[in-house]
Order: sequence, then C-alpha cells, then structure tokens
Amino acid sequence: MDYSKRSVKCHKKWRGKIEIKARVKVDTRDRLSTAYTPGVAAACLEIKNDIDKSYELTRRWNTVPVITDGTAVLGLGDIGPEAGMPVMEGKAALFKTFGDVDAYPLCIRSKDTEEIIRTIKLFAGSWGGINLEDISAPRCFEIETRLKEELDIPVFHDDQHGTAIVTAAALINALKLANKKMEEVKIVINGAGAAGISICKFLMQFGAKHLIMCDLKGIIYDGAPWLNKAQMEISKMTNENKLQGTLKDAMRNSDVFIGVSGPNCVTKEMVQSMNEKSILFTLANPVPEINPILAKEAGAYILGTGSSQYANQINNVLVFPGLFRGALDARASTVNFEMMKAASVGISECVSEEELSPEYILPYAYDKKAHEIVAKSVFEAAIRTKVSKIYK
Amino acid sequence: MDYSKRSVKCHKKWRGKIEIKARVKVDTRDRLSTAYTPGVAAACLEIKNDIDKSYELTRRWNTVPVITDGTAVLGLGDIGPEAGMPVMEGKAALFKTFGDVDAYPLCIRSKDTEEIIRTIKLFAGSWGGINLEDISAPRCFEIETRLKEELDIPVFHDDQHGTAIVTAAALINALKLANKKMEEVKIVINGAGAAGISICKFLMQFGAKHLIMCDLKGIIYDGAPWLNKAQMEISKMTNENKLQGTLKDAMRNSDVFIGVSGPNCVTKEMVQSMNEKSILFTLANPVPEINPILAKEAGAYILGTGSSQYANQINNVLVFPGLFRGALDARASTVNFEMMKAASVGISECVSEEELSPEYILPYAYDKKAHEIVAKSVFEAAIRTKVSKIYK
Repeated sequence: MDYSKRSVKCHKKWRGKIEIKARVKVDTRDRLSTAYTPGVAAACLEIKNDIDKSYELTRRWNTVPVITDGTAVLGLGDIGPEAGMPVMEGKAALFKTFGDVDAYPLCIRSKDTEEIIRTIKLFAGSWGGINLEDISAPRCFEIETRLKEELDIPVFHDDQHGTAIVTAAALINALKLANKKMEEVKIVINGAGAAGISICKFLMQFGAKHLIMCDLKGIIYDGAPWLNKAQMEISKMTNENKLQGTLKDAMRNSDVFIGVSGPNCVTKEMVQSMNEKSILFTLANPVPEINPILAKEAGAYILGTGSSQYANQINNVLVFPGLFRGALDARASTVNFEMMKAASVGISECVSEEELSPEYILPYAYDKKAHEIVAKSVFEAAIRTKVSKIYK
Repeated sequence: MDYSKRSVKCHKKWRGKIEIKARVKVDTRDRLSTAYTPGVAAACLEIKNDIDKSYELTRRWNTVPVITDGTAVLGLGDIGPEAGMPVMEGKAALFKTFGDVDAYPLCIRSKDTEEIIRTIKLFAGSWGGINLEDISAPRCFEIETRLKEELDIPVFHDDQHGTAIVTAAALINALKLANKKMEEVKIVINGAGAAGISICKFLMQFGAKHLIMCDLKGIIYDGAPWLNKAQMEISKMTNENKLQGTLKDAMRNSDVFIGVSGPNCVTKEMVQSMNEKSILFTLANPVPEINPILAKEAGAYILGTGSSQYANQINNVLVFPGLFRGALDARASTVNFEMMKAASVGISECVSEEELSPEYILPYAYDKKAHEIVAKSVFEAAIRTKVSKIYK
C-alpha cells in the first residue's frame, strides 16, 4: 500500500484532522447572556480573584498545545514550521481519540532557544500542560528543561520521553522472551539526538548498564572531539570500554539494537554479527534502519519498527494520550521519572505472558484499554510522588 | 434574572465552552498509517515545497486564535490574562456556532507591545487569521497596525472594529427611523479608548461630520494637554468648534450618544438635553451608561445596549463570525475598510423597512441568516478590492 499518495489525497479531502466544537448552545438571548455577556463577567472575576479557578471555569484543565518549530519532523529533518503541522494535527487527533485530551497544533517561526522558551511561557496561562514536538537536539533539551523549571504545569517533549517510554516497555517484554536481563545485555543506540539520548538515560534508570551510543560520526566515546554538550554528558555514562569505530563495530556481539537515526544504515551482516536472540528496534520513520524482511533473513529474533505497517509498532502514540490524561486528571505540576516509569510498566503489562510472542511484544497503538492503563498508572504515580495539586 | 450567579454555576458545570473534535478516525492500523505515520510525511513534504499548501492539507484555512492580554476585558478593565479566558472561550463558541470558524482562545502574559507583536507573529504560521481581543488602548492600535503590516493574513481587533461595524449598522437604521442624515447629526462618543476611537473614525468614513469625543477628563479638543497619541490625532478630526467642558456639555443639543465607557455616567437630565428623536447606544458591559428604563423616561427615542437583556443589542457578536467566515473563504490577505463597510451595510439590510422600529433596529445576535449575509458581503468585498489570494 502506498500510504504517501493515499495520505496526501486524504489530507486534501479532510482539510484538517481536527476542528473546534462548541460545548454550549448560544442560540437564544438567554443562553447568550449566560455563556457570554453579561453573565460571563462573573466567571472572569472569579478567576481574577483566584487564578486556579481557570481550571474549573474554562477548558484549561484539559488543554495541551502540540508545539513544534519544524526542525526535526519525523525522519524528515528541518522542513519548516508550517510543514510540521500535518504531524501536529495528527497528534491532536490521537490525543483526543485515545486520551480525550483537547490538544491544539501550533508551529513557531523561530529556531532560537530563548525565543521559543519565552514565546511558550507567555501563552502558558492558556493551557493545562505543554507537549513539545519534533524540535531538534540539542536545543530541545534546554527548551524542555527550562520550561519544566519555570512553569508549574506538565511539560513533555514527546520525541525524547515518549519514545523512551515506549521503547523501554518494548524492551522489558522483548528481554522476557529472549530470557535476558536488562542489567546484562549490551545495547547499541544509533542516533544521538533527542530520542536517542533520552532512551539511553531512561534505560539506565531501568537498570541497563552496558550501553553504546553511535551517531553519524561513529561510536560516542569519552573524549571524542565532535560531541555536543548533551553527547559529552552521555559519553561519560556509556561505553565503559571506550570503544572507538563505526556502528558496525558497536553492533558486533551486542544483544539489542535501537535505531532512532535514518533509513537503511544497518546491513544484514551487521545483524548477523549480533548475539543470539538479537532484538532490533528500528524506529526511523518513515523508512526504518533496515528493511524488516532483510533483518529477519539475517536472523533477528525480535523486530520492532516505528511504523504501523509491521508487527511490533514501537510508537509514542501508545504514550502521550494516556500520559497527559493521567497528568491532567491529577493536575500534576510536572512530569517526573516515576510517572514516566509507570507509563512504561503499564504499557508492558498490557501484554499477558500467554499473549507475548516475538511478533507481539506491545499492545496495538489503537488499543483503547492500553491508553486507559497508561492514564491510570501515570495518575497514581503523580499522586504517589506528591506532584498533584489537588490530591494529597 | 441574575445572570452572574447562573453564569458561574453553568461555567462550573460546563468546564469549558469549547473542545477539540477529531475529524478523522485513527482506530485501525490502516487509518493510523494514513492520518499519521508513515503516510503523513508526504503531506508534510508537500507543504515544505509550497507553504501555501498548508491551507489545503491542514485546518489552517479555517483557524483563527482569539488572543487577549487581559487588560481590557468587557467593562472590567485589566483583570489579567487567565481571567479573560471565559470571554475568549465564549467568543470561540460563537465563532463556531455562527461562522463555522475554528477559533481557539489564547491569553498572553505580557503587556509589552513589542513582545505581544513578536509572540503572535511567531505563531502566525499556524493560523488563517488573527482575532485580537480586549487589549487596552493605546497599545492595541500599535499591535493591530503592526501585525497587519507584517503579516499576510487577516488581523482584526474586534473591540475596535467589530464594535464600530455593528454601531454603524445600528446608526444607519436608527437615522432612517429618526429621519436624520449621517452628514448632519451631532454625535457624541463617550470613551476614547479602542472602541470609541475606532467608532469615531469609522463613522467619519460613513459620512459623519459633527463628532465630539469625551473621556474621563471631559471633552477632547485640539490642544488638550492630557491626550495620548491616538486621542491627539482624533482631536484634530473632531469637535470643529473646539468645545471644552464635560460630557454634559457635549451632550446638550446632540442627536446621537454612543457610550463605550463605564456604568451610569449618563443622567436623565443629560438625555433630556439632547435634540428631539435622540438616539442612545449605551454599550458599556455588563452595566450600561444609563439604565434603559431611565433613558426611556427621559425621552430617548431609540435605545441600544451591548447586552442581550434589552431590545436592540448592539454587540459585535453580529460581526466577527461572519466577517472571518468571509475573509477566510476569500483567503483575504487583510481586512480592509471596504470589507468592514460591507459588513455594516449587510447587517443594516437584514432589517427590512417594514420590520424597522425603535425597538428593532438590528437583527438578533443569534440570527443565523444575518451571519450568512455578513459573510457573503465581506467575501464579495474582499474579491472586489483584490485582496483575495485565490479569487482574481
């Protein structure tokens, strides 16, 4: 199926994947006087006296923008803010369908870190949380960190953490099947951008100890002269043997390959050089790091991709609707590690031991039950870690 | 009816007057692959190659934010950004109900003119037009003027022009009843903020010649030491006899009073001092410049207020949904005078000569037919004045 052609055709027909719906009737004098002037003035004054009332009297409690600067859209790179909007709109439709979250797509015409932070902060009083999207590394780290520090609503860069959460969930289940342990396996991550670095850090918090990261210039090692700030930090936490070389060198005798890089950078030979019961998550979109058929031929034990076309779709669609549903319901002031971990574990537990197989390690992205479990897990973790503003 | 209490109660029950609706189904692998990855990448690339395609492949063509800084909300003044949101949400519901426009409420935590301009510009690629709302004078003039200059989508400050358009429509019909001429009547406008100054300029473009503006400090005259920049400009275009004094002095022997000021600043005596067949539009919200019952007792011939509680509601609800519908349908690059004039004339013509009476000078705010006529009039004016980007 050529999804590209069909997708453009459908987008032309749809002319927008979301729209605004009025929740109140304003079609009589009386209704207008209640929802709008003069009655609305009283609702305004309630909020003037207590800004927290904005969560009761407006839609703020359920509202999350999906904001991009268009610099790292899918695997397409820096395609510009407006060009990122079909993805942002798609996410908004997924947010509503699977999390009942009112998400709104926004693109920002700037690549300047400070300007992006400032602009988002200025509008933050309109929203209950903020979903950052497809912003390139290393700017995305600073932008997310600063917004988390300076705002008291959940801020979440989905490319980093959504991908990390769903990848961890997939790896938990894949390792069960391979009968290997998180602490023992050798993991190679290709692509040291937003997603790769976040996956690496997240897996370490799950107990992973033997990680090697690669980028276009090869294996990341402590002291490599071409590292950016985020990569330098990661170089001190990974690659304990200070291995140098190419992706091919890194993959030899590894157990797990996680690709968040680009199309077709992994060969059959590289897969063959991995340990028995190899696990490959080739998440580049729309074209994975290796064609799944080739990878299977080369002996891969478990394969996952970012696309819904193959088995084991490892896509953050499984994360963000439920994660924000839980965070918003708890009125969490942030998204912390415990909430993200709860989402990972929740997703992995959606697949029972009987169901678990190399072709089925994760629930389907459109499994409503899975989204409910994520929401519940995140909600409970927020309360447990005392970041809820309404439940003590 | 105490709308205040009921309105707060209803707002608590509603928890938001608008929400997001998904226009596409994403509940199967196949649908997900079309609306989202991998298919969506093709839609992104189409826009990357031609930004104009964002009007075909996303909701941009129908999308307008309703943006406030919370400094001049209703008659409540500077109540803060979050506190303005019930009004912005209400407007969004009205936009959808009467214009099928997807409007989205946003509040901005800044009062700095340059910062507001910059912030809105950075997000402008997300939208088909921009509705500014409840921003205090004189900042609103600079903000609107600059955004109009620097963006190629319709920008409209509703408090200025929406009010001016509907007031002009009301005055056209009221003068018909009073059998007086726009060129000859003496018009007093009280309140020299955003709305007042815009009404004054707009009525002059409709032929009005004898205007006097007042503010809290009294009659505005050329040379008054307390004028701001916008008022100084207006002082040279109005008050040809350089009258000085109070509102009371201005109203003596006038034909028309237009109030966009505050509650109860007009007395019975002031109404009695006006010419025969006096016309009073007391638009302060939620409490008008004079109680309509008192004004009638004092001999007012035609009365209009901003509220839906009385006859002759002169509210920009009649304007903005249709105005943006027409501008968006034409893909107008701006909102020019001809488009605004077309809206005024369109509204006034909704009331036939047989229907016209002192108690019915305007269509009801919830009259769907009126909104359609505004949309059609504005659409045609945009094409006629060659600001449409798609119809030549």
